[in-house]
Amino acid sequence: MSKVISEITMSLDGYIAGPNNTVDNPLGDDGQRLHQWVHDLFSWREQHGGAGGESNADDEIIKESIDATGATILGRGMFSNGEGPWGDDPFRGHWGDNPPYHHPVFVLTSHPREPLPMEGGTTFYFITDGIESALDQAREAAGDKAVNIAGGANAIRQYLAAGLIDQLQVHIAPMLLGGGTRLFDGIDASGIALEPERVIASPAVTHIRYRVSKVS
Amino acid sequence: MSKVISEITMSLDGYIAGPNNTVDNPLGDDGQRLHQWVHDLFSWREQHGGAGGESNADDEIIKESIDATGATILGRGMFSNGEGPWGDDPFRGHWGDNPPYHHPVFVLTSHPREPLPMEGGTTFYFITDGIESALDQAREAAGDKAVNIAGGANAIRQYLAAGLIDQLQVHIAPMLLGGGTRLFDGIDASGIALEPERVIASPAVTHIRYRVSKVS
Repeated sequence: MSKVISEITMSLDGYIAGPNNTVDNPLGDDGQRLHQWVHDLFSWREQHGGAGGESNADDEIIKESIDATGATILGRGMFSNGEGPWGDDPFRGHWGDNPPYHHPVFVLTSHPREPLPMEGGTTFYFITDGIESALDQAREAAGDKAVNIAGGANAIRQYLAAGLIDQLQVHIAPMLLGGGTRLFDGIDASGIALEPERVIASPAVTHIRYRVSKVS
Repeated sequence: MSKVISEITMSLDGYIAGPNNTVDNPLGDDGQRLHQWVHDLFSWREQHGGAGGESNADDEIIKESIDATGATILGRGMFSNGEGPWGDDPFRGHWGDNPPYHHPVFVLTSHPREPLPMEGGTTFYFITDGIESALDQAREAAGDKAVNIAGGANAIRQYLAAGLIDQLQVHIAPMLLGGGTRLFDGIDASGIALEPERVIASPAVTHIRYRVSKVS
């Protein structure tokens, strides 16, 4: 059965977005600094249709994650940041015609909608019957590869609290944001056990990968 | 001039004490789990007057810190956890007659008091005129060695916000506490720059050492 992984960049003070984050400013004030480490990497640029970029330890982490993932689950907010119209002119995400996933993507939402095929192998499926249903469908789609719970924080928290994530990789960015959205806010942490299984450090970020289990 | 260092164990969700922490329960519910990694280490046990213990990568981190430190600064709460009587029978800390510091310790407080010499080389000095004065006196006492801002969270936050800490080592414990006291809560993070300069990982904890600077 597909492994369920999740990974996210977090500031040392625990934020995955800065203060005043809204639909139109999803990373919040100064939040784009969190992701500076990734934007010049070869694998990230290739995934997003760009050329060139750096190959280093951080790039290997990104490449590993891209290669491992066969299906992605997104919270509604991750899909609809920069909200567009629905109905006859449905919102097509904020990545353009060729989103960077290149595999099936399952969007948690309360709006039923037909699947939306995009260029480059990405199809968005809109799942209205809960996180477990989304995971079942994503596992089916992922085959031998992993299902990646790609965010936002709320989706990751729900899967974590339900004991459905096998591996969590936190990219700790060396900064204090001082406010915003905390990854682990309001989570019922009881019974969630973390075991560090790999740490890779670069000058830009510290990648800690945890094996996650839930003791009920 | 003495380097100013600080190090503290923090859960992955950012807590340095669990929920419901009080004077009588300073680490809060489940907070003692944060420090499990340290209690069996040879250097920690030796510092606390115990024998035996493990020598491993975590132990080397503790030994390094003990060897580097020439003076310690404590917030009032760190000294007076488990509050005792003052006056004729002054509270002598909660470590017993031979505290684990074995060097001068400067306690931030609003209660003026004579210095309190203890066994084993520790003398507590009670500083009522602010964090900069405490640091000046600690630097004088530390000589060529470092001044360690040993906590609690409030003392570390004050020195950090003032740009007075040169090196911050965070021991990230693989657990979610779900509530309690967050190390970085309410800190004015503006202008504080962190640069990871060393990461050491063990199965028990991830030690990230940051060089800290403040751009005003």
